[in-house]
Amino acid sequence: LGILERLNAGEIVIGDGGFVFALEKRGYVKAGPWTPEAAAEHPEAVRQLHREFLRAGSNVMQTFTFYASDDKLENRGNDVHFTGQQVNEAACDLARQVANEGDALVAGGVSQTPSYLSCKSEPEVKAIFKKQLDVFLKKNVDFLIAEYFEHVEEAEWAVQVLKATGKPVAATMCIGPMGDMHGVSPGECAVRLVKAGADIVGVNCHFDPMTCIRTVAIMKAAVEKAGLKAHYMAQPLAYHTPDCGCQGFIDLPEFPFALEPRVLTRWDMQQYAREAYEAGIRYIGGCCGFEPYHIRAVAEELASERGSLPEASQKHGMWGNALEMHTKPWVRARARRDYWEKIKPASGRPLCPSMSTPDGWGVTKGHPELMQQKEATSQEQLRPLFAKADAK
Amino acid sequence: LGILERLNAGEIVIGDGGFVFALEKRGYVKAGPWTPEAAAEHPEAVRQLHREFLRAGSNVMQTFTFYASDDKLENRGNDVHFTGQQVNEAACDLARQVANEGDALVAGGVSQTPSYLSCKSEPEVKAIFKKQLDVFLKKNVDFLIAEYFEHVEEAEWAVQVLKATGKPVAATMCIGPMGDMHGVSPGECAVRLVKAGADIVGVNCHFDPMTCIRTVAIMKAAVEKAGLKAHYMAQPLAYHTPDCGCQGFIDLPEFPFALEPRVLTRWDMQQYAREAYEAGIRYIGGCCGFEPYHIRAVAEELASERGSLPEASQKHGMWGNALEMHTKPWVRARARRDYWEKIKPASGRPLCPSMSTPDGWGVTKGHPELMQQKEATSQEQLRPLFAKADAK
Amino acid sequence: LGILERLNAGEIVIGDGGFVFALEKRGYVKAGPWTPEAAAEHPEAVRQLHREFLRAGSNVMQTFTFYASDDKLENRGNDVHFTGQQVNEAACDLARQVANEGDALVAGGVSQTPSYLSCKSEPEVKAIFKKQLDVFLKKNVDFLIAEYFEHVEEAEWAVQVLKATGKPVAATMCIGPMGDMHGVSPGECAVRLVKAGADIVGVNCHFDPMTCIRTVAIMKAAVEKAGLKAHYMAQPLAYHTPDCGCQGFIDLPEFPFALEPRVLTRWDMQQYAREAYEAGIRYIGGCCGFEPYHIRAVAEELASERGSLPEASQKHGMWGNALEMHTKPWVRARARRDYWEKIKPASGRPLCPSMSTPDGWGVTKGHPELMQQKEATSQEQLRPLFAKADAK
Amino acid sequence: LGILERLNAGEIVIGDGGFVFALEKRGYVKAGPWTPEAAAEHPEAVRQLHREFLRAGSNVMQTFTFYASDDKLENRGNDVHFTGQQVNEAACDLARQVANEGDALVAGGVSQTPSYLSCKSEPEVKAIFKKQLDVFLKKNVDFLIAEYFEHVEEAEWAVQVLKATGKPVAATMCIGPMGDMHGVSPGECAVRLVKAGADIVGVNCHFDPMTCIRTVAIMKAAVEKAGLKAHYMAQPLAYHTPDCGCQGFIDLPEFPFALEPRVLTRWDMQQYAREAYEAGIRYIGGCCGFEPYHIRAVAEELASERGSLPEASQKHGMWGNALEMHTKPWVRARARRDYWEKIKPASGRPLCPSMSTPDGWGVTKGHPELMQQKEATSQEQLRPLFAKADAK
Repeated sequence: LGILERLNAGEIVIGDGGFVFALEKRGYVKAGPWTPEAAAEHPEAVRQLHREFLRAGSNVMQTFTFYASDDKLENRGNDVHFTGQQVNEAACDLARQVANEGDALVAGGVSQTPSYLSCKSEPEVKAIFKKQLDVFLKKNVDFLIAEYFEHVEEAEWAVQVLKATGKPVAATMCIGPMGDMHGVSPGECAVRLVKAGADIVGVNCHFDPMTCIRTVAIMKAAVEKAGLKAHYMAQPLAYHTPDCGCQGFIDLPEFPFALEPRVLTRWDMQQYAREAYEAGIRYIGGCCGFEPYHIRAVAEELASERGSLPEASQKHGMWGNALEMHTKPWVRARARRDYWEKIKPASGRPLCPSMSTPDGWGVTKGHPELMQQKEATSQEQLRPLFAKADAK
Repeated sequence: LGILERLNAGEIVIGDGGFVFALEKRGYVKAGPWTPEAAAEHPEAVRQLHREFLRAGSNVMQTFTFYASDDKLENRGNDVHFTGQQVNEAACDLARQVANEGDALVAGGVSQTPSYLSCKSEPEVKAIFKKQLDVFLKKNVDFLIAEYFEHVEEAEWAVQVLKATGKPVAATMCIGPMGDMHGVSPGECAVRLVKAGADIVGVNCHFDPMTCIRTVAIMKAAVEKAGLKAHYMAQPLAYHTPDCGCQGFIDLPEFPFALEPRVLTRWDMQQYAREAYEAGIRYIGGCCGFEPYHIRAVAEELASERGSLPEASQKHGMWGNALEMHTKPWVRARARRDYWEKIKPASGRPLCPSMSTPDGWGVTKGHPELMQQKEATSQEQLRPLFAKADAK
Repeated sequence: LGILERLNAGEIVIGDGGFVFALEKRGYVKAGPWTPEAAAEHPEAVRQLHREFLRAGSNVMQTFTFYASDDKLENRGNDVHFTGQQVNEAACDLARQVANEGDALVAGGVSQTPSYLSCKSEPEVKAIFKKQLDVFLKKNVDFLIAEYFEHVEEAEWAVQVLKATGKPVAATMCIGPMGDMHGVSPGECAVRLVKAGADIVGVNCHFDPMTCIRTVAIMKAAVEKAGLKAHYMAQPLAYHTPDCGCQGFIDLPEFPFALEPRVLTRWDMQQYAREAYEAGIRYIGGCCGFEPYHIRAVAEELASERGSLPEASQKHGMWGNALEMHTKPWVRARARRDYWEKIKPASGRPLCPSMSTPDGWGVTKGHPELMQQKEATSQEQLRPLFAKADAK
Repeated sequence: LGILERLNAGEIVIGDGGFVFALEKRGYVKAGPWTPEAAAEHPEAVRQLHREFLRAGSNVMQTFTFYASDDKLENRGNDVHFTGQQVNEAACDLARQVANEGDALVAGGVSQTPSYLSCKSEPEVKAIFKKQLDVFLKKNVDFLIAEYFEHVEEAEWAVQVLKATGKPVAATMCIGPMGDMHGVSPGECAVRLVKAGADIVGVNCHFDPMTCIRTVAIMKAAVEKAGLKAHYMAQPLAYHTPDCGCQGFIDLPEFPFALEPRVLTRWDMQQYAREAYEAGIRYIGGCCGFEPYHIRAVAEELASERGSLPEASQKHGMWGNALEMHTKPWVRARARRDYWEKIKPASGRPLCPSMSTPDGWGVTKGHPELMQQKEATSQEQLRPLFAKADAK
């Protein structure tokens, strides 16, 4: 069944996790450029990661073609010994090969381009997308994703190009509740993307799961208010980012080499999966920081809704129940849902704060008080939460 | 000069700090009832605290009559051996006596009543205020303050009663940016209070300084938009409360006996004074948690605007400069503004979190995720900050 | 009854709190020099603080003569308009006056001198102590305290001078488990002080209560092992200082103007009082940071051992029980011992760490790793704790 | 060259990272039993992880035979469909295959047995080791490791069995500075292991890198004092554990499913590598939590000493220098050593503490104060650090 048949039937579709961050830690992607030449250089490593996500419950194998547009790859210079065509083709082959080990779909993905940021024209930018798309069509991917866009205009252009193929199109922006980099609200972004032809809309990357859910909820309300129809998706970070500004985790001082203390636990992920489902999101995946066990946690949380556990759950006791046989009674006492749901994990870092002040805010530099205002203001946000609670 | 003459002339008026919390720590007020019988029982202790605030720079001696309405004192039963009349009169005498040691004004204060909360009628509630007011008139206080109101309706009643005396009236509510307990916004509260006769409006208690400044800024914008005129005041907590909900610090699990780690430093206070001044607030004081050195810090920050340092600054080196003679070079290195402005003080409590989940939110109990959403949402608030920065 | 009669009879003696820090916050002492001229300049403020400690349960009024030796006061130059003699006499009068309001004893105190640090001879240093002592004898204090010594040699000299009067002598050093500034262990320090004539030995200032208890425990073990007899006392900081080095809180970057987040709660103090009592310490007081409510907490914890509650407990519900009448059920739920004993208070400061790296360690500057080692090593210390637990 | 030839020549040998934790996250190992059946079930996943460590700079491929003794595998029951012999043989083949892709050595490993804990006799326990050893000999591994022993007696038995083969033997215990589970000190443990025949001694697992270095330093001093000779190794956790007791991270409440906030950054690892090297440790590897990028950080830190960078450094800019091309100036500003060496990363978890109270200490349960004492005592440990600094 295709992606839209599944979603139209009310099924949950589980996405995969973040390839560039996972493969950076494994030694195959360079932080900074973040390009996916590993698809051609080290196919066994990319294939293995696909396979781990498949085993963890992913229904979609996304081609490892993030930042694989020619204009981006060229920036890398002589570090990369394969053409964009070769990288994109290799990525499609790997995704298909592993998808066929299960019943997963293959999605070809495009993302924002240096060309747009350097003010190239609409035809020029569209030509960049078109080139990657030709590979996806040749390799006959099942559907298409336009993802990681900071500007709704470029995202619209991408959707228009992808839509012309007749294949289903998903579109996600890397924005939070404050909207895109020109201040276009998430609601307006979503409406414009649906009008441009997207069947599925949502967000990916840049923010933590709870922020992403809130952003998609704003999108969903706007699309419905506009009398349009769409499916909704979220592929957030696996990092806690309560402290970041409109450009997300890029501006946190820990990005990208000291994010470890922010990584979500598997229990945080189960909460994410539940909240996303309750918010009406049916395409639930991940982005940077998501490892296979994070996706497995999503699949486990939604096991009864989906009717099955993923293969990798053979190696995982639900809610820690494999600790039941431990020799120490206090470790056995951890073999229960209540324990892990409530844990507040320590960082073992008593010299570190719990939050950071994002870099790069003109307003914040030299204005430390604004950060405190930021904290001080959070209660204003709560009105909708109270409203929600009252409604229950 | 009277309070309005001073404010009309553009002067800064510095309020005093929080008597019930300071005297609780000194052993003269009971936490829980928080009533001010000490004015009659232990006048030397109350007088000494007045004197310390006077030396620290306070221009106003507020009568220690918080919760001194008859209906409130009666709740205390036989713990209190003085009548409301005696307590109120003693408080007036103490305030006047110390005010005359400098050139401070005396303000008679009323606050919210149990009668209103138990749904007594407007005439009944107004009669309660009237009774305290009779003492204030007999003792000829310089102006009147209606403070610590959670419901704008009761605050309006109080202002109406006070206004009838012909004396200047200030009115502050203990609310944050979300408004009063019926959801009336800070802007609407302020407009209604000005229309009821208040010359000065603002907030006191319940929230930390930065939150209070934001709330008063909302009030000021609404009053001006309504074409009205008023002066503005803030008397916030001396506790950091980024994590509290609409009812403020009462709902924090640390209230009232474990708030120590939240106490603001003197440097935090200088920042508060500067921000309040820049936001157009000219009556700048404090509430619970404020000790004399906090008020002194306000006076020191605004020394050039006010044209003088307070008497207690004879015992304080600005920005730590009295450390210059220390025998250790690394302690001498702390004798500078830059050091103290930037310090991020440790709590010495590695088993404690940095934030709390407020009690008493129907929505939060059993919904820990909402707390995370709260954190996650703070960036949405930042749009006005960006706007403000752009405008600079 | 005199101090030794009380202690010999097995009574608990409760000391007072820290005058210089408390009066600095009230506006009468200057941080940096920390001298006690307020005794002569503002006797009403010093008297009031004595009275608050008396009401809180203190059995001893220590003369406010810290750093009141002539050589120290001279350093202050023309800031101070009273002679050392005048300051010392005024301090004695105030202590006696308030002591007589209850049944407290008056203790005359001397502390370390600039003369010793600048390598003056034994006779010269002893002459300094002698001069203060002459005032104490003229004013007929009940006993003598040599406190706040970093070097055991100077402390011995002080004890020898004081002992010659025939009055009881207590001696405390401001050291931790690592010993004095020449590396003399706490055990050896204690033995030498007892041999020099001290009837009571222990520590004051520089470290938090739990560290001080451990240090006195080491002292007690050594004195007993040496076949000597003494009483034991502790007058620690009211600040959590798990992160400080051998010179205590002076080296913490927060000293002295950003220590607020470290202040102990009243519940921390009850734990201190209990632990001190169980360690065999019978003279239990406080130093910098202790406010009257901290001393009251000590007295309340030991109320059954002492047979009475202090006067100020009329204004305090044990274990928060005065919250029982609160209108909000979740605040009423805090009216119980279990709640406050277990609370882990938040700092409301998400940008701050929980621990600091002390300044001034040659070894630490440029060697951040040593700090981590410090943390990493704590488990080695636990062996004596295990032993202690096994012994129970 | 064999392991001893390399170490005798003064070379640094880099170990690999933790297989059970890494493969648990990838979906191939079950937390709780932690057995290595994946070597037979999913060889491609195990091979890939070996390869990533090889690329990251590992000089040793340890056979994935942790807990692969027959008595342990039997506990697993029908979950495991391969015999111990099959698992051990498959693990040897995988290690050799990848070792031959570079110039790495293959080490066959045994670890502590359920048999010892259930008080089986020396011959019975030795027979268990012998059975695994037969496979290692058949597959002709290059050297042998006895690792993860909590009791020195069992470790000695293992070393004796391994030593009889004539191959080089390394022996590591999972202990901290407090010694083994019977209180045998690290120094005595090391001396006994060397006497039993170990050529290389040290620690693995259970504690963070800095604690492990300190423990090995104690071992080294004792071995040298005894006039013996050995090489030294460390394979610590990749988790910060300043707060754990004698049994290490097992007792932390976050073990094993909420350890994320404790994961070391790559910069923490460079510091570990440097400190280990300076302490005289020449076999430097990792255990639970170590991912390939952690090993790469070790190899990069010691690149000049080793004379080369690992292959995976082609995908890594030293000290973040690949951020130099970033479009945002504040991200470019992170492309320098000073930035990453000093960063104090936030956890994004303001409701979490920085330290935990370990479970399972008889002494701690019901004695929260002991935990505070633990913290308070750390300064006592610093004496050797001062000594070390003085000696420099």
